Amino acid sequence: MTRVGIIGCGLIGAKRARVLAEARFESRLVAACDVARARAESLAAQHPGCAVAADTEALLARPDVDLVIVATTHDALAGLTRRAIACGKHVLVEKPAARAPEELQGLAAEARSAGVVVKVGFNHRFHPALRRAQDLFDSGAVGPLLYLRARYGHGGRLGYEREWRARPELSGGGELIDQGVHLVDLARGFAGEFADVAGHVGTFFWDMPVEDNGFLLLKNATGAVAFLHASCTEWKNLFSFEVFGRDGKLQIDGLGGSYGVERLTFYRMRPEMGPPETTSWEYPGEDHSWRDEYAHMLDCLATGRTPLGTLDDAQAALEVVTRAYALPGRRTAPVERA
Amino acid sequence: MTRVGIIGCGLIGAKRARVLAEARFESRLVAACDVARARAESLAAQHPGCAVAADTEALLARPDVDLVIVATTHDALAGLTRRAIACGKHVLVEKPAARAPEELQGLAAEARSAGVVVKVGFNHRFHPALRRAQDLFDSGAVGPLLYLRARYGHGGRLGYEREWRARPELSGGGELIDQGVHLVDLARGFAGEFADVAGHVGTFFWDMPVEDNGFLLLKNATGAVAFLHASCTEWKNLFSFEVFGRDGKLQIDGLGGSYGVERLTFYRMRPEMGPPETTSWEYPGEDHSWRDEYAHMLDCLATGRTPLGTLDDAQAALEVVTRAYALPGRRTAPVERA
Amino acid sequence: MTRVGIIGCGLIGAKRARVLAEARFESRLVAACDVARARAESLAAQHPGCAVAADTEALLARPDVDLVIVATTHDALAGLTRRAIACGKHVLVEKPAARAPEELQGLAAEARSAGVVVKVGFNHRFHPALRRAQDLFDSGAVGPLLYLRARYGHGGRLGYEREWRARPELSGGGELIDQGVHLVDLARGFAGEFADVAGHVGTFFWDMPVEDNGFLLLKNATGAVAFLHASCTEWKNLFSFEVFGRDGKLQIDGLGGSYGVERLTFYRMRPEMGPPETTSWEYPGEDHSWRDEYAHMLDCLATGRTPLGTLDDAQAALEVVTRAYALPGRRTAPVERA
Amino acid sequence: MTRVGIIGCGLIGAKRARVLAEARFESRLVAACDVARARAESLAAQHPGCAVAADTEALLARPDVDLVIVATTHDALAGLTRRAIACGKHVLVEKPAARAPEELQGLAAEARSAGVVVKVGFNHRFHPALRRAQDLFDSGAVGPLLYLRARYGHGGRLGYEREWRARPELSGGGELIDQGVHLVDLARGFAGEFADVAGHVGTFFWDMPVEDNGFLLLKNATGAVAFLHASCTEWKNLFSFEVFGRDGKLQIDGLGGSYGVERLTFYRMRPEMGPPETTSWEYPGEDHSWRDEYAHMLDCLATGRTPLGTLDDAQAALEVVTRAYALPGRRTAPVERA
Repeated sequence: MTRVGIIGCGLIGAKRARVLAEARFESRLVAACDVARARAESLAAQHPGCAVAADTEALLARPDVDLVIVATTHDALAGLTRRAIACGKHVLVEKPAARAPEELQGLAAEARSAGVVVKVGFNHRFHPALRRAQDLFDSGAVGPLLYLRARYGHGGRLGYEREWRARPELSGGGELIDQGVHLVDLARGFAGEFADVAGHVGTFFWDMPVEDNGFLLLKNATGAVAFLHASCTEWKNLFSFEVFGRDGKLQIDGLGGSYGVERLTFYRMRPEMGPPETTSWEYPGEDHSWRDEYAHMLDCLATGRTPLGTLDDAQAALEVVTRAYALPGRRTAPVERA
Repeated sequence: MTRVGIIGCGLIGAKRARVLAEARFESRLVAACDVARARAESLAAQHPGCAVAADTEALLARPDVDLVIVATTHDALAGLTRRAIACGKHVLVEKPAARAPEELQGLAAEARSAGVVVKVGFNHRFHPALRRAQDLFDSGAVGPLLYLRARYGHGGRLGYEREWRARPELSGGGELIDQGVHLVDLARGFAGEFADVAGHVGTFFWDMPVEDNGFLLLKNATGAVAFLHASCTEWKNLFSFEVFGRDGKLQIDGLGGSYGVERLTFYRMRPEMGPPETTSWEYPGEDHSWRDEYAHMLDCLATGRTPLGTLDDAQAALEVVTRAYALPGRRTAPVERA
Repeated sequence: MTRVGIIGCGLIGAKRARVLAEARFESRLVAACDVARARAESLAAQHPGCAVAADTEALLARPDVDLVIVATTHDALAGLTRRAIACGKHVLVEKPAARAPEELQGLAAEARSAGVVVKVGFNHRFHPALRRAQDLFDSGAVGPLLYLRARYGHGGRLGYEREWRARPELSGGGELIDQGVHLVDLARGFAGEFADVAGHVGTFFWDMPVEDNGFLLLKNATGAVAFLHASCTEWKNLFSFEVFGRDGKLQIDGLGGSYGVERLTFYRMRPEMGPPETTSWEYPGEDHSWRDEYAHMLDCLATGRTPLGTLDDAQAALEVVTRAYALPGRRTAPVERA
Repeated sequence: MTRVGIIGCGLIGAKRARVLAEARFESRLVAACDVARARAESLAAQHPGCAVAADTEALLARPDVDLVIVATTHDALAGLTRRAIACGKHVLVEKPAARAPEELQGLAAEARSAGVVVKVGFNHRFHPALRRAQDLFDSGAVGPLLYLRARYGHGGRLGYEREWRARPELSGGGELIDQGVHLVDLARGFAGEFADVAGHVGTFFWDMPVEDNGFLLLKNATGAVAFLHASCTEWKNLFSFEVFGRDGKLQIDGLGGSYGVERLTFYRMRPEMGPPETTSWEYPGEDHSWRDEYAHMLDCLATGRTPLGTLDDAQAALEVVTRAYALPGRRTAPVERA
């Protein structure tokens, strides 16, 4: 039985709570806290046996907490993870795990010393189309990598520019550190580290001091390219991730829900070239990535295996984001709103 | 009756010939020539009344030629256009009209002096989905431009690296000057001139001294971005062009044939945001862009109107291509072929 | 302010309750009852000010109930509607409004005498794609009707054969009276009354005494045909409705959610024939048909207008269903389950 | 080397000629004839070494003809096949092989006596999506058959009602014997023989004495149903064939070209039901069914194997068509044309 404490009881914290409480898991929510106590109380009310902790230290001090889920605004993610490690807790911290890579400095080593597992919640890795694409790629199905191309975006909502994500001191950045960091993390799974970071980060529409669009052109040491775009002015929700290899292409579309049915298409070039052999797999129905990610976390706790999505992964992805933020020529003046 | 001479009787020249011979047009092919005389003879055989000219000068000297179609390899496009103008002929020259913008220097002025119309064959402008998108955009349907995103590519064919397009002295470059120049030309229709040219041009797969992929990140003076990718390692033929405005999005997919049914989708944001109003138009059946472009050319001859696709347009698009070619860090080593 | 009582607090009753409680409506749930009192209590708990009535007569006796929503199993729909009319209440009764057309005999007249409005919940009429299709058709956009073709189905769920719908005394029938009645109702909107009813009703998979598939071939007086299939062995949820006119075709796909994005496509034949002009409208996002239907009901109460979906409509649709049930050669032996 | 004579040099005959002349085949066109001699001459001109026979008897008398392809109007198919058999020739006769099943009486026996192979050109069986679907079905992938549902149609063309297909003495019928017979033939591959034939055959739009729509409801001995619609008022070209088994569904869409990319989707139900496992295969590019069918024919000649598409198959499919034609209540008055 894994006993869990949750810090941060917003949308994501509540979703994590629902997942861990599923009958399939030997897992139980024992404590919750939130800067807005009412949110913690509301979550606890839905989970019999869950106490409301007065503050994060009180939660971390509880001996009956084995695993801490950190689901706060970005500014608190790294610090709370550090404290949880110090208290000897395993940690599942939401992406991007920090506002900047420096905040994660030394954290992986501290976790190793403390003998605890820390996983970063890059849940997109657990989407079945992406998982199968990674497996196919790793097995050589499309040969060596040529380049990646990805588009990820949503259309915001009324008042989006007044949400906490628009406040850089809380979020560390805008669209690029929010949805874009998923693209960077996924791209690393195919291309490894990116030596070159070019592109353009800018604010085109939302009147806020963080970017609403990130266009990236990354290169790894072998010359493979990642051409990525993350946007919160996409208007029509979109997720598209394309992996081009010497011998074919893997294309992932959709994430379920308003992003459309999740689908993987495998285009395999034939020796005579021309139209490729084309096979698709669709994943209709509910998004189980959160459940599968949690199952993986429990498995790592049980077996000591390294989780998919480490602190090093988060640090490397944030490194890319931070370098992109430092690029010159940033657009800061959004178009005039109607 | 417009009497036409064709220089260059390959695939494109033959296609132009078929179009001008359609009953709907008051138009007739009177002369053809080609560096490979057999090709000119074969074309002439299909067009009763068409003579084979011994060489380009012989063709240009004919008083019964009103309009010259220049459909040669890129190295000869600009020079022949200049000669045709000097001979007082109207000209329809295939894109990109030259290998580099310098080759077009002064040509527009010469045409004006000679009182002839010169049109560059940017036939994509005449695809109905793109034309309607441009009309909607011009009428303000999606508000001011935020950015453009486009992908255009094919998968080559066996021996592609040994075709004339792979020889820079003939082609002036690879994928970017071939398919990519269409994207740049179309992008100019929405964004105007691009002050900034960044990106990456490289050879990833085909063992040839020109690029097989061009990734562009362009910016105009108002900060609108064009994020464009042209590829001949696309594996699955693809044309996708997306125009993001403040109030909505225009998306063009397909060009018919192996590029899929041509479709325009108009996403209009509602004041309350959320999922946009979504309307699509499909254009199944044959590709009539060549026919419509030729009709437009005849109309310009009749009315003196400025054609869509001028020498200035070609020069501006080639300027972008040339600047992209000059970017540092070009990849030249293709991946090892199986 | 319209004060509403709900009889039958299952899934549909609860959905109706949520809708009427939306702030946009001048409407309030004042009483609920259910054969399982706990269900009524649970519903009332979510709607402040809602009382739990001891039984249907107690609910109908309340002077503060203006409108009764009848959302019970099929066996009780007609009888409760009759009683509600007798008590002077307006009624919104769920489709199919009865198990058989005889149960509705005289009811419309009783409602007229009582001066109350009775609407049957054929909510599909309020799906935007279907509404727009009906409007286009009524305006002559596709000319006179040739035929209709429709497919509607889902894949059931574990234990489906033990749910109340599988008990003919409660349901009056299987798939045909459940989803199929929507198809018949929609078909009547385009074709009017069906003089001929042919087809096949059968039990193919689910081990239950009602049919799981209905194949219908209907004809109206002018020779227009409706070729309809309703299935609960469709495996992949599907809604497709096609209207063929002399001058074009209207095609509706999807109903949102697991049925896919709702879309209307209008194919208009051109005088020269060949590929039609093709325009589509998509309706992503939530299903608002229930809300729009309720708004329409309130509008009918306010204006005295005849509602879309009358008792006569229900009787006519049930007439078709009943005639289909009487067709000889019914398959009753499902395939052997694995 | 197989030496081939073609009787009937229209569209289909010419297509067969092109296929057999492909370098891959040890096959040669040696003679051609047509009621319109010019058509035979035109075909012969494209096939060096091909003689023009004065008439069918002259062609059949040639000792250097091993295989006769009969590609005439329907009225001549059976008679010519009978004569070719009598002359000891192998035969590839186009579907439907006759105007009515009676015309085929005894033919299979005659072929056996003569020791020749006769194959009927049901080329749809050789479309890769249909072939794979049949293989999956035969291997038990979707369990025992519940029912089939198919739609096949095109939108005609100007003057369609004046083509030979509209003359019953030449064609034997309209849409049902033309495209519909493919559906019946394919349906037999999954369901075997159909004991019951119901449905509706009618003329809805085209002013011609043969039907333009056939709606079929067939049943085999085990109660499996085929719900089929063939139409030449489909307006948008469509091919859709769906096979529902106890454990899943096979869906074939498209035939290439104007019918859309050919695709097979396999929906496999999971033990817990809900959304099925979904895998698709696409077949872009050219339609190779004619080539694959011819390769199969040559293989049957070489090995003595029974071809896919026998005279018995044609007779059984025509039996269904003929019974459908005999159904009462046929609509003969098309809607008034605009």
